[in-house]
Amino acid sequence: MTSTRFGFEIEHAGPTSRARTGRLTTPHGEVETPAFMVVGTQAAVKGVAPWELRELGAQIVLANTYHLYLRPGADLVAQLGGLHRFMGWDGPLITDSGGYQVFSLGFGLEHGVGKLVGTFPDEARPPGQRARARGQPARLTKVDENGVDFTSHIDGSTHRLTAEDSIRVQEQLGADIILAFDEPTSPLHDERYTAQALGRTHRWVRRSLEARSRSDQALFGIVQGGAFEALRRESAEYIGGLPFDGFAIGGSLGKSKADMHAVLDWTILALAAERPRHLLGIGEPEDLFACIERGIDLFDCVAPTPFARHGVLYTQHGKLNITNAVYRADGSPVEADCPCYTCTNFTRAYLRHLLLANELLAYTLLSIHNLHLVVNLVKAIRDSLRGGDYVEFKREWLSRYAAAGPASGPPAPESEALSPDPSSL
Amino acid sequence: MTSTRFGFEIEHAGPTSRARTGRLTTPHGEVETPAFMVVGTQAAVKGVAPWELRELGAQIVLANTYHLYLRPGADLVAQLGGLHRFMGWDGPLITDSGGYQVFSLGFGLEHGVGKLVGTFPDEARPPGQRARARGQPARLTKVDENGVDFTSHIDGSTHRLTAEDSIRVQEQLGADIILAFDEPTSPLHDERYTAQALGRTHRWVRRSLEARSRSDQALFGIVQGGAFEALRRESAEYIGGLPFDGFAIGGSLGKSKADMHAVLDWTILALAAERPRHLLGIGEPEDLFACIERGIDLFDCVAPTPFARHGVLYTQHGKLNITNAVYRADGSPVEADCPCYTCTNFTRAYLRHLLLANELLAYTLLSIHNLHLVVNLVKAIRDSLRGGDYVEFKREWLSRYAAAGPASGPPAPESEALSPDPSSL
Repeated sequence: MTSTRFGFEIEHAGPTSRARTGRLTTPHGEVETPAFMVVGTQAAVKGVAPWELRELGAQIVLANTYHLYLRPGADLVAQLGGLHRFMGWDGPLITDSGGYQVFSLGFGLEHGVGKLVGTFPDEARPPGQRARARGQPARLTKVDENGVDFTSHIDGSTHRLTAEDSIRVQEQLGADIILAFDEPTSPLHDERYTAQALGRTHRWVRRSLEARSRSDQALFGIVQGGAFEALRRESAEYIGGLPFDGFAIGGSLGKSKADMHAVLDWTILALAAERPRHLLGIGEPEDLFACIERGIDLFDCVAPTPFARHGVLYTQHGKLNITNAVYRADGSPVEADCPCYTCTNFTRAYLRHLLLANELLAYTLLSIHNLHLVVNLVKAIRDSLRGGDYVEFKREWLSRYAAAGPASGPPAPESEALSPDPSSL
Repeated sequence: MTSTRFGFEIEHAGPTSRARTGRLTTPHGEVETPAFMVVGTQAAVKGVAPWELRELGAQIVLANTYHLYLRPGADLVAQLGGLHRFMGWDGPLITDSGGYQVFSLGFGLEHGVGKLVGTFPDEARPPGQRARARGQPARLTKVDENGVDFTSHIDGSTHRLTAEDSIRVQEQLGADIILAFDEPTSPLHDERYTAQALGRTHRWVRRSLEARSRSDQALFGIVQGGAFEALRRESAEYIGGLPFDGFAIGGSLGKSKADMHAVLDWTILALAAERPRHLLGIGEPEDLFACIERGIDLFDCVAPTPFARHGVLYTQHGKLNITNAVYRADGSPVEADCPCYTCTNFTRAYLRHLLLANELLAYTLLSIHNLHLVVNLVKAIRDSLRGGDYVEFKREWLSRYAAAGPASGPPAPESEALSPDPSSL
């Protein structure tokens, strides 16, 4: 069974790369691709209301099944009319399978790694996250052939999640796109373990296909296999051969951007070109170009909002840290030609003041800017692909962005699940 | 000197009470009175952006001189074009003198009292405030004839504020209305001390008049004298005889609502009817009717936003605490016929979820509702005074509101200065 209310139409495919533009059709509206999905972990984008999301150009929101399963519970969301009504967002929604959070809250916290080796060095984390990570029990998950036992990060209660459970919960939540249940692996897993996990993932995604009962939701398969070429190729062949409405690429993407690009090169061609492809958890500005060129249509990345709450702002000239003393009396906006609400109304000096004074409004205004930039960078890439001037646009954008050097702020927390914000403790 | 760019026109004065409607004219627009001023302590209303303030009907915002003097500094605000441009609010603004915060952070925290005895019982405070109050040094202020030495609550640095300093700082900030420098007293001060403080206040407000140099700001005098009839009458006569553009009534208002009403009855008639009257720091729904009837035109009260952040919501049927388990699956809005953004888009169950999940959006949405209710209650009172059906409106409103009994939540923190919100620690 594939969804009867979901469609994907490719509008433009570039002659010199695998980049393409297209249009997803869902029961809650269309999504122009490539698209950046905004992350609303607990059925809310942190500090940003739905009207502001519309205003800044967001097309689709990703919510986390793991979090909503634990709190407030998928049955409650269903009882209240489903996730769209619950969170006041009537546009397209996607939920993940819960697998990433279940496993990353176990293994990831234990070993301090995320999707790329080194993205979770404990010393580099903002202090709040460090304390939290260290305070976690050593082992929160236990996997077997049928599913995974895990411990709630909220209250320590124990739970079990199987492929069938994940699909049932996602059907209760009622997003337009749902994901098959998988076991993501980290860059610290060796090839042998990654192969075992991949075997489970393949059996679980097939069970996910069989478990689905709603025809108004698209179901995406997930390619795993870590940074191991043979496993990634095997997984893409297997998943690509199943009747999913689209495909996600998840799990460890290696030790570098080059590894990530290689993973895409090994997998993309096995995933039918006429179905959409989603790269899970990636979306830094510099990644978007390279991944779109390799055939990715959909991105989700939590980074813009935790970055914002720590004062790290994206600009076309690289990142800036608004808490820096150099901005104390700076009467210019974060970015001169940015049309977002924050940049058209407030100065760097004011935003710095708000953040240093722990004003809630800081988190909202800074998050609006970061989300606006990333969402509209992907839109600009889309437009340049349609207009035929992608290569020039990319060259200009990346030369401006890279010229600024590395970010002056703390690194982006890789997953919101693992990065409590300063105001939610 | 009185302001040349400030006007107050009384439109309607009721035949059966001292209630009246009017119109303040300021360089940044008009304010219809009676009006509820929204408090933006640190040049921001906590969690609510200027566009949302406009949307919910706010006419005028009050910012705190004490806080802005300490951070980011009035010179910086002036350098950046003044408070309106700094905070992105182009409507009318008022700043207080700084006196209330200077003294309340000393004496108030030391003795656990605010404007009314019993409003600050330590046991009744939310835990965050309790810890903070207890952690304060025993004595933060030292007053003499010329001014007051105080210690910053931010970094422990020492400062001195005089009448001339307060006016200079407020002129740098550049609000439309500024307040004369005073020494407020608490309900725990005896008559002898209150009389001494009143003497200083009278000398300080006269010095404030002499110190002012801008003709585009209105300067309001402040009546003090605690809950002592002779002192309040003396103060109203004295302040009422000086060429202020308007009058504020500050300091301790006694031990009960009846005491507060008595203070108004002792003072209002000595304050020229043709100038606006501002009751400082009061604005609970049930207080608005009684104080407007006694001739008050302007209110400011911080309570709606800290109440909101603790989950306590105003409704026409009394307060409700959204964290209560009874709202777990409640699919209705906070208030059925409320036209605010929060009530037209979100359910009680969702708002409860956001608050329990420590989602930043909770603070914004709940604050919008509380501010909307109070601002628009005062608007409805204004309309009923104009329309001649005030008595009926009041009877109906208060019978609905009182029937619900006391609030189920924690008491309202009396001053934002003394009530760090859970998300700003």
